[in-house]
Amino acid sequence: MVRNLRSSTTDSFFIYSDFQHGTAPMDFANRYIQSDDSKICVVMVGLPARGKSLIAGKAMRYLGWVGIPARVFNVGSYRRFNTPQPSATFFDPHNEEGERMRRAAAEAAMSDMIQWFNTGKGVVAILDATNSTKERRKWIYEKCQEADIEALFVESICDDEDLIMSNIKEVKTTSPDYKGQDPEEAALDFRNRIRNYEMVYETIADSEKHYTFVKLINVGSTVIINQIKDYLSSRLVYYIQNLHIKPRSIWLSRHGESEFNLSGAIGGDSNISERGEAYARALPELMRKSGIPENTKIVIWTSTLKRTIQSARHLKAETGYEKLEWKALDELDSGVCDGLTYEQIAEKYPEDFAARDEDKYNYRYRGGESYRDVVIRLEPIIMELERSENVIIVTHQAVLRCIYAYFMNVPQEQSPWMEVPLHTLIKLTPRAYGTEEQRFKADIPAVSTWRGKGTSAKHQEFPAEGEAKEETKE
Amino acid sequence: MVRNLRSSTTDSFFIYSDFQHGTAPMDFANRYIQSDDSKICVVMVGLPARGKSLIAGKAMRYLGWVGIPARVFNVGSYRRFNTPQPSATFFDPHNEEGERMRRAAAEAAMSDMIQWFNTGKGVVAILDATNSTKERRKWIYEKCQEADIEALFVESICDDEDLIMSNIKEVKTTSPDYKGQDPEEAALDFRNRIRNYEMVYETIADSEKHYTFVKLINVGSTVIINQIKDYLSSRLVYYIQNLHIKPRSIWLSRHGESEFNLSGAIGGDSNISERGEAYARALPELMRKSGIPENTKIVIWTSTLKRTIQSARHLKAETGYEKLEWKALDELDSGVCDGLTYEQIAEKYPEDFAARDEDKYNYRYRGGESYRDVVIRLEPIIMELERSENVIIVTHQAVLRCIYAYFMNVPQEQSPWMEVPLHTLIKLTPRAYGTEEQRFKADIPAVSTWRGKGTSAKHQEFPAEGEAKEETKE
Repeated sequence: MVRNLRSSTTDSFFIYSDFQHGTAPMDFANRYIQSDDSKICVVMVGLPARGKSLIAGKAMRYLGWVGIPARVFNVGSYRRFNTPQPSATFFDPHNEEGERMRRAAAEAAMSDMIQWFNTGKGVVAILDATNSTKERRKWIYEKCQEADIEALFVESICDDEDLIMSNIKEVKTTSPDYKGQDPEEAALDFRNRIRNYEMVYETIADSEKHYTFVKLINVGSTVIINQIKDYLSSRLVYYIQNLHIKPRSIWLSRHGESEFNLSGAIGGDSNISERGEAYARALPELMRKSGIPENTKIVIWTSTLKRTIQSARHLKAETGYEKLEWKALDELDSGVCDGLTYEQIAEKYPEDFAARDEDKYNYRYRGGESYRDVVIRLEPIIMELERSENVIIVTHQAVLRCIYAYFMNVPQEQSPWMEVPLHTLIKLTPRAYGTEEQRFKADIPAVSTWRGKGTSAKHQEFPAEGEAKEETKE
Repeated sequence: MVRNLRSSTTDSFFIYSDFQHGTAPMDFANRYIQSDDSKICVVMVGLPARGKSLIAGKAMRYLGWVGIPARVFNVGSYRRFNTPQPSATFFDPHNEEGERMRRAAAEAAMSDMIQWFNTGKGVVAILDATNSTKERRKWIYEKCQEADIEALFVESICDDEDLIMSNIKEVKTTSPDYKGQDPEEAALDFRNRIRNYEMVYETIADSEKHYTFVKLINVGSTVIINQIKDYLSSRLVYYIQNLHIKPRSIWLSRHGESEFNLSGAIGGDSNISERGEAYARALPELMRKSGIPENTKIVIWTSTLKRTIQSARHLKAETGYEKLEWKALDELDSGVCDGLTYEQIAEKYPEDFAARDEDKYNYRYRGGESYRDVVIRLEPIIMELERSENVIIVTHQAVLRCIYAYFMNVPQEQSPWMEVPLHTLIKLTPRAYGTEEQRFKADIPAVSTWRGKGTSAKHQEFPAEGEAKEETKE
């Protein structure tokens, strides 16, 4: 029986993740992470305040979410270790001491990166620095070649002064370099620092055509892609070119309490309960309470199941927001267990029940899905969310956990155990250095659908303290 | 009961196609084909022999396959109507009569295109012509704006003389313009014709930055993407940038006869029969017989189900080819009908059985999939196939029908009824003007799994003549 569990534990990427464990994992690794020891170094290139760290951070989060081990190596933080609060003159290219220190920081970052790859656990490293001269890029390229690492240069170019200044104000004056300093003074110092970089900045040139690179010009309004060879790089570039930096929020809500929730059954396509209907009626006001900037267009996304459509009904009717239904937002398919309670599953399929508790992220219901499967089918949803602006998603517990995990960088082991209570609106607002979260609880009671490891209780209360409670926020 | 059938008949694209009929089709159309009357005109730009028609043809086939109505308007064929076999001097820009005729052809194509959009059935038109001057592009852009059509310019640039010459020899000397002429003479004439175009050719310039465009340089080794706004264009551009023109073949085979095939049951995960095992043993020789160029690396793709893995086992062992297993290649999920025979389905779910015959492409098994669903999950497989070179795919009847339909441009109504017999190897070789097909039958008997409309016969023989037999080849 156990051999039917079809638990897929291979590290995975996109559709390749659909690969099932126990059949030919080596072939998987050989092909899809290109080779047994595939290593990609994403080398950021660009002047300060061009969004490099934002892109680096998002790419890392995205890769981690789809199961590719990725890490950012920020050269600035190596430099900062020795020179915590440098003045603008430190960055003057004629300042030899400064130049020496920055070179040392780059070398330290490269060396750590190569060491990380050598552990065999790394697949994508992101080298976050200006890398603003041909010479520096040549040095990195050669270092990578020596270590059998593929270099992918990602240059962010921006000549829109407003964009640059808004980036400086939002990001840089709160950077560790300026901790405790006056923001206006900090902005001024930073503007000077950029001028120093501008003196020596060299965009990726024709003489560097043999490199694999992407140039993003003015936040992706123009994109130049050169010599992309492998699938992983091509998907990563596609992700990066879909990013935008317009301010927006994403709201997440589970459907209102359903009839199945009341009976403790999972899956199905039941109607919402009376209390669920009360939540649906309360949702428009809850949205307003959460704060919606004036003239903001919001789009409602639901799954194709009745309980989410019913839950968004009043919101749509009252606001006239556009609405979309996605099959990709349907609840995790519990296969043969669909319609059963946890108690019944524990009784009928004790081995499966235990296996699921053991590794909830990878456990695939017989004839159904695992959390990993859900992440794969949500990948295009995430891509579309990155392209979109303000969206409220009304969906299901497992799906919401996966989407939340993407934005809040929750590790795979934790995300399936997260508490996402009914009748609660979550508002996520992307910021330069992470995602801000707010929760708004409707004052409408509902059963708890959270289940602790090893229990099959119907309506268990989420513990006030404990491992599963731990929230991971950026 | 009928309301549970979940037949999805909406025209669809990518994951959006997951949208289910009966819930909110207008919302779907509004959002995902951008607006109620979304119209995109892909304007090809480039000198002759730069692969424009190839790109145009593949894009149209791809869009049609994912459910987006698309059509190519080839200006040359409008011109050809009046001037069937022009000499090179016709294309001399100083030849006023020639210029006037070509302008008239462009106007006729534009006018037909706009008329096609006005029928309300068109979503993507592809204007296949050189469109080699700023003036011509400005005229097209303005014409599109007037008609509320979004223009997406796709320029193919190639300065690799070998690539150009091989394109001329493969494509142009067999073009309708040179019908019945000596190939060497034709190639010479064509080279002269290109020189005329080169005199006036203007690549898309900085002054055209307000256009949405893509430049493909030397078959996608560099790609420049400018001002892509909507999702449909972004996916189309991603598809185009994955195309390559290296010679290769794709082999398709169903698994060897399975135990379920013998009993007439559908779905499941049974072993192959004795005769299926004989086919597995015969497959390496059948591959050799089909013709494999020397030093060709082939990759084996199977589904994750036992019958395909078993069928590819000897091929892998004998050749050492790399092998991959894809869940996306698993057979169409027949939901509650999994493991039943057609007879049992007809008896147990008569309404479903009739509904499936009525619209087999869109019929979704209860708790399972439709052909449309399978196409959606195969979309990344097609993308990866376009990026790959030589591949043999060992998969299942419905999945093979969908993949075959993509390459051979089989309409949705026909593809679910196609005969794909067991123990037969299909070799597809992409050519400039379509895909060449060869079939190689192993001399090993197997049951027929083909079922005609309205029957529930277990092992029906495919009719020698008849509608479903009709093969659609490019």
